Amino acid sequence: MKEVIEEIRAFNEERDWDQFHSPENLAKSIAIEAGELLECFQWNSEFDPDSVCDELADVMNYCLLLCDKLEVEPEKIILEKLEKTKLK
Amino acid sequence: MKEVIEEIRAFNEERDWDQFHSPENLAKSIAIEAGELLECFQWNSEFDPDSVCDELADVMNYCLLLCDKLEVEPEKIILEKLEKTKLK
Amino acid sequence: MKEVIEEIRAFNEERDWDQFHSPENLAKSIAIEAGELLECFQWNSEFDPDSVCDELADVMNYCLLLCDKLEVEPEKIILEKLEKTKLK
Amino acid sequence: MKEVIEEIRAFNEERDWDQFHSPENLAKSIAIEAGELLECFQWNSEFDPDSVCDELADVMNYCLLLCDKLEVEPEKIILEKLEKTKLK
Repeated sequence: MKEVIEEIRAFNEERDWDQFHSPENLAKSIAIEAGELLECFQWNSEFDPDSVCDELADVMNYCLLLCDKLEVEPEKIILEKLEKTKLK
Repeated sequence: MKEVIEEIRAFNEERDWDQFHSPENLAKSIAIEAGELLECFQWNSEFDPDSVCDELADVMNYCLLLCDKLEVEPEKIILEKLEKTKLK
Repeated sequence: MKEVIEEIRAFNEERDWDQFHSPENLAKSIAIEAGELLECFQWNSEFDPDSVCDELADVMNYCLLLCDKLEVEPEKIILEKLEKTKLK
Repeated sequence: MKEVIEEIRAFNEERDWDQFHSPENLAKSIAIEAGELLECFQWNSEFDPDSVCDELADVMNYCLLLCDKLEVEPEKIILEKLEKTKLK
């Protein structure tokens, strides 16, 4: 996954898009892409796997950018949250 | 990341929650959690890093469950989508 | 507003779309359109008023359809919720 | 509906909340509340009508605030969008 984050970082640096990636804007982007993912299931539960993977990749791409911006490891915060939920 | 997916899978199997995790329900869950993440930035761009990490972890948790359900690797679909975007 | 609801109802009946408008699908549609509205503000707080009105209209259109499906008056439930919030 | 908008306006003026209601923040709030509405349908299509009305009212409340901020009438922009869609 570290390699993937490196690729995403390079992709955005080449385009000089990093300037737009404040945590707030990334949170908005995650919500926007989550809406597009949901659109694959708007009228029923059937779906086209390719479209779903495309939209899911967009959501995860912005999630990884937000992790990178916050300087946290995705694996670490997911496991920590799982532990918290277990304790409840 | 594979280890994380194993942990998530075990967590849900113990609770017998797998029955609820249709792709459609997971897509709804991603949108719901993305809304909670956005709530950390509702009235301004300042934020509490711990709350953001908590909500971001929830979004990613459901993203990984959806990858698992679709039998795709998160790293693979993210990189493929990046390639597609480069070609545009 | 009653006239608007009549128009929306006629519009959907003509297209035989009513069959897709379960409360669940309408809730998904509201979230999807809310994502498109948010997209008008993805990278900054500036916005094109026409696009915002277009997307906002879509959100409200599905909200009214959901009110209609639940047989509640939008004005009534908004005022009731306002009263509830005042009591908190 | 004009009366409802007056009520919402008064409610927010009393609490001095108007300062937070930029179009961008209202768009975020609509997406956040749309997520809470969707949560009523997270794991199946059954739902509690009271909770759905509560969350739907919150979405519409912020939609009306955004109309008010943009100085447009909700009825007007909904009908205009309906006409646009008919032409497509």
